[in-house]
Amino acid sequence: MLPEYRVMTTMGPMTQIPGRVRTVIERVYPSIDCGRFPIKRVTGESVTVRADVFADGHDRVRCVLADRAPGRQSWTEREMRFVDNDRWEGSFSVDTLGEHAYTVCAWVDHFGGWRDGLSKKVKAGLEVSLELLTGANLVAAAAERALRTGSAAPLGNEAPHTGRKTRRSEAARLTELAKRLADENKTAEQRIDLALSNELRDLALRYPDRSRESRLDKPLWVRVDPERAGFSSWYEMFPRSTSSTAGKHGTFRDCERLLPYVSEMGFDVLYLPPVHPIGTTKRKGRNNTLTPTPDDPGSPWAIGSPEGGHTAIDPRLGNAEDFESLVRRAGEHGLDMALDIAFQCSPDHPWVSEHPEWFTIRPDGSVQFAENPPKKYEDIYPINFETDDWENLWRALRDVFRHWLKAGVKIFRVDNPHTKSFAFWEWVIAELKRDYPEAVFLSEAFTRPKVMYRLAKLGFTQSYTYFTWRNNATEMRAYLEELTTTEAMEFFRPNFWPNTPDILHADLQQGGRPAFIARVVLAATLSSNYGIYGPAFELLQNTPRESGSEEYLDSEKYEIKVWNRDDPDSLRPIIAKLNYARREHEALQRNDTLRFHSTDNPEIMAYSKHSPDLDCIVFVVVSFDYQHAQSGWVEFGPSKLGVRSTNQYMVYDLLAEEGYRWQDGWNYVELRPTNAPAHVFRVVPLDRDDDQSEAAW
Amino acid sequence: MLPEYRVMTTMGPMTQIPGRVRTVIERVYPSIDCGRFPIKRVTGESVTVRADVFADGHDRVRCVLADRAPGRQSWTEREMRFVDNDRWEGSFSVDTLGEHAYTVCAWVDHFGGWRDGLSKKVKAGLEVSLELLTGANLVAAAAERALRTGSAAPLGNEAPHTGRKTRRSEAARLTELAKRLADENKTAEQRIDLALSNELRDLALRYPDRSRESRLDKPLWVRVDPERAGFSSWYEMFPRSTSSTAGKHGTFRDCERLLPYVSEMGFDVLYLPPVHPIGTTKRKGRNNTLTPTPDDPGSPWAIGSPEGGHTAIDPRLGNAEDFESLVRRAGEHGLDMALDIAFQCSPDHPWVSEHPEWFTIRPDGSVQFAENPPKKYEDIYPINFETDDWENLWRALRDVFRHWLKAGVKIFRVDNPHTKSFAFWEWVIAELKRDYPEAVFLSEAFTRPKVMYRLAKLGFTQSYTYFTWRNNATEMRAYLEELTTTEAMEFFRPNFWPNTPDILHADLQQGGRPAFIARVVLAATLSSNYGIYGPAFELLQNTPRESGSEEYLDSEKYEIKVWNRDDPDSLRPIIAKLNYARREHEALQRNDTLRFHSTDNPEIMAYSKHSPDLDCIVFVVVSFDYQHAQSGWVEFGPSKLGVRSTNQYMVYDLLAEEGYRWQDGWNYVELRPTNAPAHVFRVVPLDRDDDQSEAAW
Repeated sequence: MLPEYRVMTTMGPMTQIPGRVRTVIERVYPSIDCGRFPIKRVTGESVTVRADVFADGHDRVRCVLADRAPGRQSWTEREMRFVDNDRWEGSFSVDTLGEHAYTVCAWVDHFGGWRDGLSKKVKAGLEVSLELLTGANLVAAAAERALRTGSAAPLGNEAPHTGRKTRRSEAARLTELAKRLADENKTAEQRIDLALSNELRDLALRYPDRSRESRLDKPLWVRVDPERAGFSSWYEMFPRSTSSTAGKHGTFRDCERLLPYVSEMGFDVLYLPPVHPIGTTKRKGRNNTLTPTPDDPGSPWAIGSPEGGHTAIDPRLGNAEDFESLVRRAGEHGLDMALDIAFQCSPDHPWVSEHPEWFTIRPDGSVQFAENPPKKYEDIYPINFETDDWENLWRALRDVFRHWLKAGVKIFRVDNPHTKSFAFWEWVIAELKRDYPEAVFLSEAFTRPKVMYRLAKLGFTQSYTYFTWRNNATEMRAYLEELTTTEAMEFFRPNFWPNTPDILHADLQQGGRPAFIARVVLAATLSSNYGIYGPAFELLQNTPRESGSEEYLDSEKYEIKVWNRDDPDSLRPIIAKLNYARREHEALQRNDTLRFHSTDNPEIMAYSKHSPDLDCIVFVVVSFDYQHAQSGWVEFGPSKLGVRSTNQYMVYDLLAEEGYRWQDGWNYVELRPTNAPAHVFRVVPLDRDDDQSEAAW
Repeated sequence: MLPEYRVMTTMGPMTQIPGRVRTVIERVYPSIDCGRFPIKRVTGESVTVRADVFADGHDRVRCVLADRAPGRQSWTEREMRFVDNDRWEGSFSVDTLGEHAYTVCAWVDHFGGWRDGLSKKVKAGLEVSLELLTGANLVAAAAERALRTGSAAPLGNEAPHTGRKTRRSEAARLTELAKRLADENKTAEQRIDLALSNELRDLALRYPDRSRESRLDKPLWVRVDPERAGFSSWYEMFPRSTSSTAGKHGTFRDCERLLPYVSEMGFDVLYLPPVHPIGTTKRKGRNNTLTPTPDDPGSPWAIGSPEGGHTAIDPRLGNAEDFESLVRRAGEHGLDMALDIAFQCSPDHPWVSEHPEWFTIRPDGSVQFAENPPKKYEDIYPINFETDDWENLWRALRDVFRHWLKAGVKIFRVDNPHTKSFAFWEWVIAELKRDYPEAVFLSEAFTRPKVMYRLAKLGFTQSYTYFTWRNNATEMRAYLEELTTTEAMEFFRPNFWPNTPDILHADLQQGGRPAFIARVVLAATLSSNYGIYGPAFELLQNTPRESGSEEYLDSEKYEIKVWNRDDPDSLRPIIAKLNYARREHEALQRNDTLRFHSTDNPEIMAYSKHSPDLDCIVFVVVSFDYQHAQSGWVEFGPSKLGVRSTNQYMVYDLLAEEGYRWQDGWNYVELRPTNAPAHVFRVVPLDRDDDQSEAAW
């Protein structure tokens, strides 16, 4: 039954009404779901806050944006700037990991209003002696506020909080100015000059009457993440497929040998599927069959055996020391290790016997396996988040993360988070971030859009997307515009994957090498976070298990593979160039400056990204036709982004390593699948350091 | 100084986390400023609520829209309908004046999910005996819930809450069905048939497990106003200009004589500027001069004299009995009386001496007059809403409204509400509406858009708009689309005025009769609430005080006028036709169905409105060129509004009283300023009651 909600009282008793607060603060942006969720930034970024701020009548208002860094007690304020139509704007930057607060305060500016009115009356030649006395009173009141112990520190955009000594000297000066304003021995001109002086204005405005200011009910929040959260290049590989001996189970030691391979390709996150003991009950055979041979290693996602569960390591991969060594060595190669967290259990997982109450028990006493009727997944037991013992369950799951955090893992790719309770994710990420604010959680949720967004709001740092299924210029542009120009960009950080162990898209199956190149260029340049599942990707693996399937034939999920990483056809060199371009070009390390540009050929998509200072501009042209050459005209010019340039500029293809002289407006491009289906251009306007920029190439 | 906001705790202690609530309710519409303000409706209207509702995983959810009428204790629930993409929708209607609550509740539908899964497994030929036992348990649990004393009444879309007796019999039936589901003596087919039967589904779904449902933190609210709030035709007139003897001060008795004149023109609200004693200190003379003669009556907005203030009546108009008689007689003519409430005082107002603390006192002890530097308005003292005595001030202002409410006035046109405190308006309107939910408050705020919207959110029933300054088809369309297709339509009820005593727009000054007709047609058909200031309007008064001014020459604000209401050129007959059309056509009594239609001539604007059932369709064509004939093609057809019609339909001009046979698509129109610059067409599709509709004309 619905509870009896208290009857609405639009207003409380009069004594509780802030009856003399005259300013209104509305439509604060950014603010996710009425402040229910924080926005996200990485260290070093800034937050621009906009709000409608106004008062009744014609009085002037002043408003400040206040922010408080994680762990700090005091707030920093800066005056907001009037934009237009009662909209105000201010910015602050975030430098410390954690939860950074911000809010807006506004009040009626009686001093400023008085000064304005006086100025108009003086210009109109009116007698203003009473106005001067009014001003004297206002200034004397400011002097009192400056003196008052414990009163607000004066506003200062850059200045640190003003100490007591300064306040006393400023109070003395204000008192003196107030007296002079009221001094009838002075001429009207003298007093008016003083009244309208910058000194008086600046000083008086530092001690405003904020006793009746309005502010947001609750502060808003920024979750400040590490830079890696905003810019990362992921390489996924199965550690068991790393042995150089065919058929032999790879180990963490083998992985160490491959670190140069991965890091020289320019990746900075090395992501391993689950490394835990794999169950044997109902184990899947090759190609997901139900008839495994004794040699089949099983799926790493069928987690848990008598050897242990989510905190254990499959002994065939190594032991805890081996793992920590790998983490350490990876770090030496500039690679952060990312682990897969899949909260599900094989029937052999220790939790099944220790905590049967964490699972759904069927009427015959057996544990309910995963299913998507009529499909059954009998090697997997899903966790029942409605269990009566949910608090212990949550703690145990949290402790899985803690275990790996202690082992040096700071990045987690979370498997199917959308099939676990939302409340759990919000709780566990907040719990973990308190101790490890540098932790990154990537949500692998391929599900409905609102569910994906919700997970991001709840705390996931990065998110899988629909990128893989956006396969023409129109769809791709619409999707990117949703991700980069709506409120989603405040909380949802896309991570684009051209392939995963679960997804071999038809475009790769049919488009071959040109498709592989185009898709990785799109992923790496449209999104500052991207990843590939290798070596399947760079080795151009594109055979599906069966026609119409997105599963790989002989998928690594069910067997140990031997990869010829030195294959001369490997995309390694191109991927390395792409990752190098990403590292060298600030433009590619963010998504907020993405702009699409017109083309006259619907198969060709053109877009640019730039650094905020416009010093770095990248322009990309990609063909979605992987069979035929496509040519056409694309409209571009640095002037469109706000660069004051001459008509001419250079574009330098970072993949083909060749440059062209282009002009503002329409330029011709030709993309041949046999050659390269994409250009990734560095753009250099020619009027800035003209000769040098050409010479630099 | 900023208070030390409590450090954010994203989640509270675990015991406070609703850890097993799995459903999410997001993006509820309508909801103004996160539920801070109510939406508005009039009695008889409905509210359609949409929300994103989903759970983790693949489980089904159910959600209900619950509403509670003003003064009721219990909630009525109805199941919401799935629309698309996790969006759900439901509707309720409002019939009682006051504050009507609504909210959304959602829960995981375990029974429905079980039934779906079973159905798929049966289709796939799987063995389902365990599933049948699971179902038996779910059904037995529903039976228990049906029995439990004080448990939720079962859901029923239309049904009243189910009584105890029904619940017991339904519980018994559910228990029996549960037993049969589990009965191994029955064949699998029998049990499956029962499991998937409609009877079991309908009965079990009536007793869902809602122990872990989610709901909105706080209910949302609809302010339900009287029908007049949504559909009204205002006529403003100065009561002192109603005498039939030139130079004589009109009285309420004179007004009574004019009631047939106003009501026969089809108006339903008679609005009088302030009727209070007028101050003599600094009184304004004719044409707002500072040199009045002793005979000049002063501006009715310079309120208060020794004879009284905001609750007194100017003795030259009559006494309280005369006023109440006028209110009563107006009612007999179908006219609601509206009074002007202008919270400002002449220097002679009793409050100035009784409550000097309610005003701003200048350093010389004098009271601060109104000013807009360098302009001075010395006949007006504004109230200081920052006074220390604000609580008594608010009570006194409230009591002004109460005085007139007791005298039978239910409609108030509030003068310049934007120069008074927002908090006051929210409080006073809530206070008054508690006792007089039928009261209507029209906000006369010609100020910045966000301020106008704020006043509407705070409680004003209707609002003045920028209509008067939207003077071509592009501007007008953009403005109307803002008012009728954005969130504003949920709280802002426009009231369109072609003229007011303060505003004689240049278009009327220069456009003459065709402009007057076009503007009143626009006002009366674009907005369900509109008004004119007469007889200046119908008598085509269009001489400004000076070139470039919007003030009337010899404005009635400063002198008594004698009007020749029987002038044969009067627009009375046209206005009467317009008001008749508004009364007879439901389409014109609402704004939410307004649609603009294409024309090939930018001077011509075309739009339609329709009743929700499409039985009433009105199509309007107006020319903004008041000098020249304009012709062109307009694209229209009832099929565009969703009417299943043949290609042909009739349009009947309610002003010119002539009909045409039109077809779906482009039709030719010609508008001559000398004739009529507008068509107001009734539209009748010809396939519905074909002959009769033609015959009806």
